[in-house]
Amino acid sequence: MSDNPSLVLRGVEDVVHEQRPIPEISGDEVLVEVKKTGICGSDVHYLVHGRIGDFIVEKPMVLGHESAGIVYKVGPNVKHLKVGDRVAMEPGATCRSCDACKSGRYELCPDIIFAATPPYDGTLGRYYKLPADLAYPLPDHVSLEDGAMMEPLSVGVHSVSNLGGFRANQAIAVFGCGPVGLLCMAVAKALGASRIIAVDIVPDRLEFAKKYAATDAYLPPKFNDGESKIDYSRRNAETMRSQLGIEDRGAKAVDLIIDASGAEVSIQTGLYIAKSGGTFVQVGMGNPNVTLNVSLIMTKELNYKGSFRYGPGDYPLAIGLVAQGKVDLKPLVTHRFTFKEAITAFKATRAGKGEDGKGVIKAIISGPE
Amino acid sequence: MSDNPSLVLRGVEDVVHEQRPIPEISGDEVLVEVKKTGICGSDVHYLVHGRIGDFIVEKPMVLGHESAGIVYKVGPNVKHLKVGDRVAMEPGATCRSCDACKSGRYELCPDIIFAATPPYDGTLGRYYKLPADLAYPLPDHVSLEDGAMMEPLSVGVHSVSNLGGFRANQAIAVFGCGPVGLLCMAVAKALGASRIIAVDIVPDRLEFAKKYAATDAYLPPKFNDGESKIDYSRRNAETMRSQLGIEDRGAKAVDLIIDASGAEVSIQTGLYIAKSGGTFVQVGMGNPNVTLNVSLIMTKELNYKGSFRYGPGDYPLAIGLVAQGKVDLKPLVTHRFTFKEAITAFKATRAGKGEDGKGVIKAIISGPE
Amino acid sequence: MSDNPSLVLRGVEDVVHEQRPIPEISGDEVLVEVKKTGICGSDVHYLVHGRIGDFIVEKPMVLGHESAGIVYKVGPNVKHLKVGDRVAMEPGATCRSCDACKSGRYELCPDIIFAATPPYDGTLGRYYKLPADLAYPLPDHVSLEDGAMMEPLSVGVHSVSNLGGFRANQAIAVFGCGPVGLLCMAVAKALGASRIIAVDIVPDRLEFAKKYAATDAYLPPKFNDGESKIDYSRRNAETMRSQLGIEDRGAKAVDLIIDASGAEVSIQTGLYIAKSGGTFVQVGMGNPNVTLNVSLIMTKELNYKGSFRYGPGDYPLAIGLVAQGKVDLKPLVTHRFTFKEAITAFKATRAGKGEDGKGVIKAIISGPE
Amino acid sequence: MSDNPSLVLRGVEDVVHEQRPIPEISGDEVLVEVKKTGICGSDVHYLVHGRIGDFIVEKPMVLGHESAGIVYKVGPNVKHLKVGDRVAMEPGATCRSCDACKSGRYELCPDIIFAATPPYDGTLGRYYKLPADLAYPLPDHVSLEDGAMMEPLSVGVHSVSNLGGFRANQAIAVFGCGPVGLLCMAVAKALGASRIIAVDIVPDRLEFAKKYAATDAYLPPKFNDGESKIDYSRRNAETMRSQLGIEDRGAKAVDLIIDASGAEVSIQTGLYIAKSGGTFVQVGMGNPNVTLNVSLIMTKELNYKGSFRYGPGDYPLAIGLVAQGKVDLKPLVTHRFTFKEAITAFKATRAGKGEDGKGVIKAIISGPE
Ligand SMILES: NC(=O)c1ccc[n+]([C@@H]2O[C@H](COP(=O)([O-])OP(=O)(O)OC[C@H]3O[C@@H](n4cnc5c(N)ncnc54)[C@H](O)[C@@H]3O)[C@@H](O)[C@H]2O)c1
Ligand SMILES: NC(=O)c1ccc[n+]([C@@H]2O[C@H](COP(=O)([O-])OP(=O)(O)OC[C@H]3O[C@@H](n4cnc5c(N)ncnc54)[C@H](O)[C@@H]3O)[C@@H](O)[C@H]2O)c1
Ligand SMILES: NC(=O)c1ccc[n+]([C@@H]2O[C@H](COP(=O)([O-])OP(=O)(O)OC[C@H]3O[C@@H](n4cnc5c(N)ncnc54)[C@H](O)[C@@H]3O)[C@@H](O)[C@H]2O)c1
Ligand SMILES: NC(=O)c1ccc[n+]([C@@H]2O[C@H](COP(=O)([O-])OP(=O)(O)OC[C@H]3O[C@@H](n4cnc5c(N)ncnc54)[C@H](O)[C@@H]3O)[C@@H](O)[C@H]2O)c1
Ligand SMILES: [Zn+2]
Ligand SMILES: [Zn+2]
Ligand SMILES: [Zn+2]
Ligand SMILES: [Zn+2]
Repeated sequence: MSDNPSLVLRGVEDVVHEQRPIPEISGDEVLVEVKKTGICGSDVHYLVHGRIGDFIVEKPMVLGHESAGIVYKVGPNVKHLKVGDRVAMEPGATCRSCDACKSGRYELCPDIIFAATPPYDGTLGRYYKLPADLAYPLPDHVSLEDGAMMEPLSVGVHSVSNLGGFRANQAIAVFGCGPVGLLCMAVAKALGASRIIAVDIVPDRLEFAKKYAATDAYLPPKFNDGESKIDYSRRNAETMRSQLGIEDRGAKAVDLIIDASGAEVSIQTGLYIAKSGGTFVQVGMGNPNVTLNVSLIMTKELNYKGSFRYGPGDYPLAIGLVAQGKVDLKPLVTHRFTFKEAITAFKATRAGKGEDGKGVIKAIISGPE
Repeated sequence: MSDNPSLVLRGVEDVVHEQRPIPEISGDEVLVEVKKTGICGSDVHYLVHGRIGDFIVEKPMVLGHESAGIVYKVGPNVKHLKVGDRVAMEPGATCRSCDACKSGRYELCPDIIFAATPPYDGTLGRYYKLPADLAYPLPDHVSLEDGAMMEPLSVGVHSVSNLGGFRANQAIAVFGCGPVGLLCMAVAKALGASRIIAVDIVPDRLEFAKKYAATDAYLPPKFNDGESKIDYSRRNAETMRSQLGIEDRGAKAVDLIIDASGAEVSIQTGLYIAKSGGTFVQVGMGNPNVTLNVSLIMTKELNYKGSFRYGPGDYPLAIGLVAQGKVDLKPLVTHRFTFKEAITAFKATRAGKGEDGKGVIKAIISGPE
Repeated sequence: MSDNPSLVLRGVEDVVHEQRPIPEISGDEVLVEVKKTGICGSDVHYLVHGRIGDFIVEKPMVLGHESAGIVYKVGPNVKHLKVGDRVAMEPGATCRSCDACKSGRYELCPDIIFAATPPYDGTLGRYYKLPADLAYPLPDHVSLEDGAMMEPLSVGVHSVSNLGGFRANQAIAVFGCGPVGLLCMAVAKALGASRIIAVDIVPDRLEFAKKYAATDAYLPPKFNDGESKIDYSRRNAETMRSQLGIEDRGAKAVDLIIDASGAEVSIQTGLYIAKSGGTFVQVGMGNPNVTLNVSLIMTKELNYKGSFRYGPGDYPLAIGLVAQGKVDLKPLVTHRFTFKEAITAFKATRAGKGEDGKGVIKAIISGPE
Repeated sequence: MSDNPSLVLRGVEDVVHEQRPIPEISGDEVLVEVKKTGICGSDVHYLVHGRIGDFIVEKPMVLGHESAGIVYKVGPNVKHLKVGDRVAMEPGATCRSCDACKSGRYELCPDIIFAATPPYDGTLGRYYKLPADLAYPLPDHVSLEDGAMMEPLSVGVHSVSNLGGFRANQAIAVFGCGPVGLLCMAVAKALGASRIIAVDIVPDRLEFAKKYAATDAYLPPKFNDGESKIDYSRRNAETMRSQLGIEDRGAKAVDLIIDASGAEVSIQTGLYIAKSGGTFVQVGMGNPNVTLNVSLIMTKELNYKGSFRYGPGDYPLAIGLVAQGKVDLKPLVTHRFTFKEAITAFKATRAGKGEDGKGVIKAIISGPE
């Protein structure tokens, strides 16, 4: 096929289907025919706001970065892939020569070319080129849809396994039951969690989490009149502790806290319930400035770590966990769309609800055919 | 000597010299005749406020926890010490059987008996008993005054070496040039820092730091009218970066940030100037609730860690660094008092200035004779 | 019950049932009525040789150290246990004040009092006293027999999880399919191994391993005439690599090698098949002096680590894995004996075969009643 | 200059000066005019044996890999270097896309192009090309000769700091006082060693070590008649322990052992004297097959690690230590030669003695002019 139809964001609330030139590949690259792409909150954010922090859409940009597809062309130096291979696509190509890249933390590379992060085009076209080592062959029993879902799963792997250092028989609490939170729970389960506590303010999401991976669920109370966030959070933490029997130390303590909600009160509450000597990994992005009880961090010697995308080994572990049947991605895909319906797919994700009235966890776009 | 004169805090602003019974020791303990005791901000805090957080002085309590002395009696099971040995005294006796104690983080023991932390008596008496393994023999060329200073030095060792993982050829910035901040700098220097940046709002302290251990000094600007803390901190960080040539990555980046001021703006500023992938250790205790830019923590994948006292290996490393001549404690002792003058010593520390008009870094009380 | 019948080793091949005084407990200890005890190769070794390395049986010693029982008496300071609690018994009481104990590696305590290691008595009596924190309550659905098996399982946990740092989706090869090797495999499985390769020279044991936990099994060839051990091992490794598709790097490489056979050729072979950058944990004890290909260790930068018993957190993880159903201990108990039949139990373990003609994996002694 | 005179090894004992084409550089590379090159034992080994292990000289190969020079040409993408910059040259260009490269251990890259390791040419010509990030600018006060010495110093940094995890106030013993052993000592000293024990069988080398960096020196005894290596080593270790007051634990124990001799008896002895819980890093390459006391590795839970070249961060730390004055490389350069005298330089290194009768530690070749 000689054309390359693409979904292009031209500005705030302005997204169109457009033809784009087919990328040329170099010796170490492959060209992939994109088959499945998940829509992420950040795609919607660019659509609605035209920016995320300092990343500003200043010229038309192809959307999409959670993709899988079929190898269409391989560069002459590529050995481990051939045309026709089904691959998950890691969407960040790094410089490979800076300190971050060389020391095993390429997620911090300043020169990363990340799909659908301005000024770089994303994967929602027919073709996308990437360095061959970022195209991971999928085992036969793993679907292309699963392949697309490896992207958010890698966020979970990075946060829970890599940064969180989570191990068998530990307890975890995850704030936020969107796709990222759910996948953090799925990873924790696969690694042998003794307890997985899901927290969300939306009862349906909580219900979903319980069926999917959580062993316990917690619905935070409403704010009292005039209550400050930090007061609310202290009260919330106390309720949570007594309702779920959480302690500061020992077998009833929570070893790892993940915030995947971005809500200030989640972070505040999480610090209260974290185990003495425990770890808190921040995945959710919300308000940049957040009031934290630093005194808790000190007296419990907490380790509060920021998590950004994924690094070496995260995609392989994600694929491994799915291939072994330890993580099931299928239940998360609630809505499916053709490439032509892409704009509807964005609407559904944005609304959190499809035209069928059902809550959207993850919407996947097929094609273009 | 059969009496045990002690400095007892009876309530807010109410401290007296009183006789106390001489402690009985068990088989694994030693009784030490206390010879030198440094005054710490926390001693002063109990004097002025009667509490630190949830630790409330509810009955009379002997003050002091930064001490060294001479072994006066040894329990029958003690092998490595004998009467007359000069020892530094680690002031926290832990349970040795909880998870924290057994896993190598005894600073988090919930049952710690810490000198001069309510309800436990401190070291400012003639005699203090402690488990024999917490009495560390001092090499001949290390003075008893140095021995008392091992306590705050261990705070520095714990923060910089143990939690901060600081290594040769790394750069550090320390906010706050009180005794704790200065000793963090001294440790960084001993470990082979390539650059040590001292920050303080008091020019004299900054000057002292520069002479003592820092390679660079930074005096933050004043607040502009109506400027919020977080706005101030962003501006402060920008000024600091350009003034000192600080970058986000590479040889000009700052690997480790220590806050030893407890000031909200120090923590905020520190997050801005921290290296991508860097570590921030929180040592200073100020307002419990602090507004932090969590977005910086995430996109730089910072590791923000609370530091609490000291743990296994910290006292030995502190003593080792002094014994080898890699840390010089002497310049920090600016004022000396007899046991009888103890209350004057507290006054000087509280005022930050002695009767001689000179700034107090550390005041040491000798005796009781 | 006021008597304390015990199984006492008086010298080489000289073991008798004898009365022993009931131990007195101190404030932090508990007295446990022993209910189940597994026989370990080391017990048999003392029986047959009167020594293991420098540990020599010089006076009569009660045998046994893999035990569980019911709390019979609790010291006045003990809070988390009461009479009647069912507990797994960790058999090494450490000093809690040496560097090893304080830094989180109590298995290296020079003053450890380890059951049935001369000169200390073991657990094969009616009563055994131990520090309360070493008596771990068993959940209701975990049997006392499982409780006894926590001891060898903790060896597996220590080697695979703690020292081996084994994580989900990694591959492991275990040389030796005795109880220790099998439990290493069980731990690897519980932690989410992608591949578990069992190696043994006894086909029955290999068969057992395959049913129990291994995904692949390898039976080494016989020696050729005049072949040296190191030549044999190189050939063995080549056969193993091609037979099982093992590579030096990537998804087909073996991340962790465990030797649980003590055989020189196992260690030699393991070094050949280990992944570049991989880890080898030595658990099996055989000939002290072994010829190793150090060149492999260097060019692959292997990490060759000795494993000794278990340390902080190992018993809790062992119990957690069994409680969660991630490790099943029942299949390993092939033979059961009363306390009166204890000597027969030792005979069966020594012969590797019971009177029923079946291979012994683990023999358990009940009682004394 | 348009020619590229080079020192070429054509076969065993057959080395000549020859013209070679000037390498073409790609966009990310630089061409360096080589100014100083140290001769390494491996260069001599190829000259004498034509191979090292599986690396066989099958076609003519330029020798040399310890070099520094001046940037002569820069690829269009190179930003941090310009023509005329003085640089240390890291001689291993890796693939940057394998698991080893991406996870921060590029020394294990299977596709490394290492100077003067067959089939790749070395640096002993006028020009050598390398990826720009492997050319490290030298501070003004660091000489080009120092720049060449960064290569063996990086071996020391990798072994002592990176793999050995050596920290201030620890003790180290280094077996072998050739350039590599001496530089391991220099690194240990720079990192704040409390004690550095040098071991060599050549008294002059030992003497040199003592002056250069060691705090203690140990000369092993001769073999007794008919004594086996392992018996000798046990005796050697006992002598060493008593002579130097070495213990198994505590402040008199040796935390890190480095073998930089390759001698079997050094490795054996080192295991005996290593601290319980300590680390042993194998740097020296001798006989591939070595008899080790595995029982020591187990009961002390030693960590025996192979060290291969250097990885991310090692060159920067080496340069940093020299730039800060913490490591002095000058005393090690005992002999200097012009490019024309290169073959004489090899002869001196091989003989261990120059024509001046003085022992060679490191011989440096200048030029070609
Ligand atoms: N760190 C990274 O690299 C990375 C990568 C992807 C996504 N993210 C971030 O992770 C977060 C989650 O992503 P997602 O796609 O799952 O988003 P989402 O919006 O689908 O899910 C967020 C969930 O948090 C819940 N929530 C909101 N307020 C809450 C509160 N006070 N307490 C508990 N739950 C609350 C919401 O109801 C929702 O279910 C987002 O902030 C996103 O920006 C980070
Ligand atoms: N974590 C622990 O275990 C531990 C132990 C001891 C002390 N501490 C804490 O460490 C802190 C330092 O102790 P200290 O004895 O050195 O106290 P100190 O009061 O002598 O020193 C604090 C210094 O911070 C400076 N400072 C104040 N505001 C600043 C700002 N905005 N920017 C830069 N510098 C600023 C002050 O001028 C002063 O020099 C205290 O908060 C103390 O409570 C913690
Ligand atoms: N490190 C520790 O703390 C610790 C603790 C307990 C046991 N151990 C040691 O672990 C080892 C295993 O203990 P166990 O109770 O399972 O013993 P075991 O004797 O029941 O099992 C050893 C197994 O190794 C097999 N084997 C022998 N030679 C072999 C070879 N060349 N290749 C492959 N397999 C071979 C045997 O057939 C047997 O199945 C013993 O050496 C024991 O001393 C160590
Ligand atoms: N791992 C790596 O990446 C790497 C890199 C460079 C060199 N090396 C190896 O490091 C070793 C040292 O290199 P070098 O250039 O310093 O070599 P060298 O030959 O100059 O030094 C070896 C020293 O060991 C001494 N020695 C020999 N037998 C001894 C014994 N029994 N006890 C104590 N000392 C003994 C010798 O007298 C000599 O001084 C060599 O084996 C070399 O191959 C390894
Ligand atoms: Zn990069
Ligand atoms: Zn404790
Ligand atoms: Zn101990
Ligand atoms: Zn590579």
